[in-house]
Amino acid sequence: MEIQKKENHFYMTNHAFVMKAEGLKKKLIVKKEEPTGLVTVQTDPNAVHGWKCKKVADIDSLDDKAYGKGESLIVDFGDHQVGYLVMKIRPVGSPPDAPLHLRLTFGEMPIEMGEDFATYDGWVSSSWLQQETMHIDVLPHVLQMPRRYSFRYLKIEVLDASPKYAVAFDEIYCETVTSADTRKLSPITTADPLLAEMDRISIKTLQDCMQDIFEDGPKRDRRLWLGDLRLQALANYETFKNYDLVKRCLYLFAAVTDENGQVSSNVFVAPNLIPDDTYLFDYSSFFPVTLYDYFVATEDLETAKELWPTAYRQIELALERVNENHLVMDDTSGAWWAFIDWHKDLNKQAAAHAILIYAMKRALGLARAVDDEKRAAFLDNKIKQMKKAAVEYLWDEKQQFFVSGAERQVSWASQVWMVLAEVFDIEKSSQLIDMLLTERPAIGPVTPYMYHHLIDALIMVDERDVARQVMKEYWGEMIEDGADTFWEAYDPKNKNFSPYGNSLINSYCHAWSCTPTYFIRKYKMY
Amino acid sequence: MEIQKKENHFYMTNHAFVMKAEGLKKKLIVKKEEPTGLVTVQTDPNAVHGWKCKKVADIDSLDDKAYGKGESLIVDFGDHQVGYLVMKIRPVGSPPDAPLHLRLTFGEMPIEMGEDFATYDGWVSSSWLQQETMHIDVLPHVLQMPRRYSFRYLKIEVLDASPKYAVAFDEIYCETVTSADTRKLSPITTADPLLAEMDRISIKTLQDCMQDIFEDGPKRDRRLWLGDLRLQALANYETFKNYDLVKRCLYLFAAVTDENGQVSSNVFVAPNLIPDDTYLFDYSSFFPVTLYDYFVATEDLETAKELWPTAYRQIELALERVNENHLVMDDTSGAWWAFIDWHKDLNKQAAAHAILIYAMKRALGLARAVDDEKRAAFLDNKIKQMKKAAVEYLWDEKQQFFVSGAERQVSWASQVWMVLAEVFDIEKSSQLIDMLLTERPAIGPVTPYMYHHLIDALIMVDERDVARQVMKEYWGEMIEDGADTFWEAYDPKNKNFSPYGNSLINSYCHAWSCTPTYFIRKYKMY
Repeated sequence: MEIQKKENHFYMTNHAFVMKAEGLKKKLIVKKEEPTGLVTVQTDPNAVHGWKCKKVADIDSLDDKAYGKGESLIVDFGDHQVGYLVMKIRPVGSPPDAPLHLRLTFGEMPIEMGEDFATYDGWVSSSWLQQETMHIDVLPHVLQMPRRYSFRYLKIEVLDASPKYAVAFDEIYCETVTSADTRKLSPITTADPLLAEMDRISIKTLQDCMQDIFEDGPKRDRRLWLGDLRLQALANYETFKNYDLVKRCLYLFAAVTDENGQVSSNVFVAPNLIPDDTYLFDYSSFFPVTLYDYFVATEDLETAKELWPTAYRQIELALERVNENHLVMDDTSGAWWAFIDWHKDLNKQAAAHAILIYAMKRALGLARAVDDEKRAAFLDNKIKQMKKAAVEYLWDEKQQFFVSGAERQVSWASQVWMVLAEVFDIEKSSQLIDMLLTERPAIGPVTPYMYHHLIDALIMVDERDVARQVMKEYWGEMIEDGADTFWEAYDPKNKNFSPYGNSLINSYCHAWSCTPTYFIRKYKMY
Repeated sequence: MEIQKKENHFYMTNHAFVMKAEGLKKKLIVKKEEPTGLVTVQTDPNAVHGWKCKKVADIDSLDDKAYGKGESLIVDFGDHQVGYLVMKIRPVGSPPDAPLHLRLTFGEMPIEMGEDFATYDGWVSSSWLQQETMHIDVLPHVLQMPRRYSFRYLKIEVLDASPKYAVAFDEIYCETVTSADTRKLSPITTADPLLAEMDRISIKTLQDCMQDIFEDGPKRDRRLWLGDLRLQALANYETFKNYDLVKRCLYLFAAVTDENGQVSSNVFVAPNLIPDDTYLFDYSSFFPVTLYDYFVATEDLETAKELWPTAYRQIELALERVNENHLVMDDTSGAWWAFIDWHKDLNKQAAAHAILIYAMKRALGLARAVDDEKRAAFLDNKIKQMKKAAVEYLWDEKQQFFVSGAERQVSWASQVWMVLAEVFDIEKSSQLIDMLLTERPAIGPVTPYMYHHLIDALIMVDERDVARQVMKEYWGEMIEDGADTFWEAYDPKNKNFSPYGNSLINSYCHAWSCTPTYFIRKYKMY
């Protein structure tokens, strides 16, 4: 897979949309969270990534010890935190006659406490690894780290003090930040403790990703991606109900498009709003979907109307990839043209075809809501043509599976998205899903993002018990493996899987993994 | 040598003196200094420490290049700087999709650019090595380093950016700080270019050490030491004439003493005024000396009167070390009781004895100035007794040298200080110095601090030509070896000498080395 990188990156800015998005920005909710204990990290062949943390002392014992050159400690905050670290550092011994040289390492997972970051060899930037070294010239000092971190564990290493003094840590805390207001949450009652725990962790995951924007992950990339936004918004409607944050994000995407009007797969909001130069077929198609979901949740017709041209433009642009047989054309260049899932061998044609149908159906809903009859008629017709094409060109009657690409690949993603696109009626879709769960083709889902669509497809064919079961198996095993928040990538068959070639860099609090609460609450699965 | 470290560190604070010192604090003079070129560092067996920098490009060429992961550059400021670094960093390529991870290394000398700081194995804290790593989340960014650095060279290493972007450095500069006002300098005219250069570098050294206090070295320890203060003050009277800064430093020492009234060898001024728990016989004795020099330079009788009790107290305390034979007693415990010089084998008894005589002579001057006749009489008598004791117990008639300690060590330091104490008349002192320069005992001077006293002794016996010659040889060789400012330690016979076991940590702009300008100007040696 080649990453996208445009030589000449032009984009159009709609100033009024930028201003509207900025007007929707709110003050974050700040809370002080204190650590609960001191831990050590140790190897354990049975633990995920081979590392686990073990409690060695209560946090009160922090006061008892001064740490000199070469000494270190690991502080456990007991749960996942996103925020700003504050530490009160006091010298012990003679007046400090040299600066204090400290290294702080923040980790969401034990592996980040155990493994040396210098061993990192993944393909995304090592600069995401949360480690800082610093010199403190004057002690005592209240260290207020200016960057935001995402972590449960904090390793503090005294690289050097001096032969004449050591340091004690009188107070350590995190000022957490979020735009999720927990007062908006409704409690649910369930006799199933695992469902209750999945709901709690889903909500915590969403909460920690809700900042000035819906971030994909507060550790990495801290960015607004359309695919993640769509799922976060759904979970948010069932929990925190922060409608303005979804509206803000929709305007951010609509405010900066390429010269053809395509919304980017993701946008940067600092130092100012800039669209990334990565454009993905499925993510752009999710713009009308996310707008439609927002409209259904809020009945905010004014926003639907104002963003309708942007939404419709995504469909027009996606249709440029559809050939005379009404079929989404595959890519043969090796370019990263659609996301779908992180499975490295996944062919994306069939899923992309289905996603466009899925998106056009939501666009059709919007067209009717905003009284755009002409486009509604066009979409209605196009959906029919593309459904027909899907069956004609991608359905393999012999295998009873949809196939994708020149090599006619059978993947979970293709079947799941065809079900969600309602290419077949419920009965036939149900048979397809049963077949999928029985045959289990090799190209399976590797992220909670793809598992979300599997669950969604099961619900669409009214198989809620199976949906609950699959959800409990997948997210439940993640909980058993120690998830405080749900992870970006999780393959139960290969627990060291990383889309980036190294588990250190994975995000262990990732927005697209937060949807169990959406299913549990929307479909009253408790 | 054992460093001093008190288990129970009590000290007395004279609040009025603290307030007086604070009232003398002034705004520093800030100046913007820009780099002059880009250099590489390379090994060279003929260079000091085996490293030299070589210019590869003008600074204008900085604009031409973007630096990606693993790339680096070394910026040369062309001269020694003390101040705050500012860098404008601009991303090149796609919008930055990961933080920028930078390492900055500041060096006064090529060795700091060439050697890996991880190899440092000296006995003072590695935290003095000027290296920072940092993450920058939002680009473009104007990086304003909060700590002050002392450097000529700056190495910038891009540890990571991302496959999608690199960075360019549009502007790099240093906001230098000093309390030395160069407008106060008088030009001197000399036909000797080496003397002119020594004068210029001395003044630059002093200037860079003159901050809120007279620092010993702006790289390390950045602290007010009495021994350094004394020499800085002398050079200052001939150059910048910042009398208030000397006065402020005298009050700082007098404001915090131990429970007996002894001034510390050095004080910390942040977070508030604290005396170090290191008390040195010679340094405390220099308090009356420095006050006397200040009084002679300024005729500020009010300050002399106010600080006279503190000054006299140092003599009283030093005399507690004098036995019934009027002889300063040696230490046999291995404790670090007096400084004198960094030579590791130096016995300090004779020099300490001489220094107390030297100090009492200045105290006597003060006693007369403040009309303390009783103490003047006491001092006058004591000086005579101790001069006599010096000859009686420490002079070795056969060797024609003063000896020190039980093993009757013959060192340069002992002879030099006995000359400065005027134990003999000028004629005999002159013979002693000649003998010293001819015989050259093994225990020689290893710092410019000790060389200062050698030059001072030569001037005292009216051997100004020899003084000039020795000065030109010693400091001149340092210039040849690449000194932009004069170094803390320099042994021409062992150019890798470090008092701390590793040359990386040496201070290469050190206050006590700045006195050639004092000799040149005070004794009109140009």
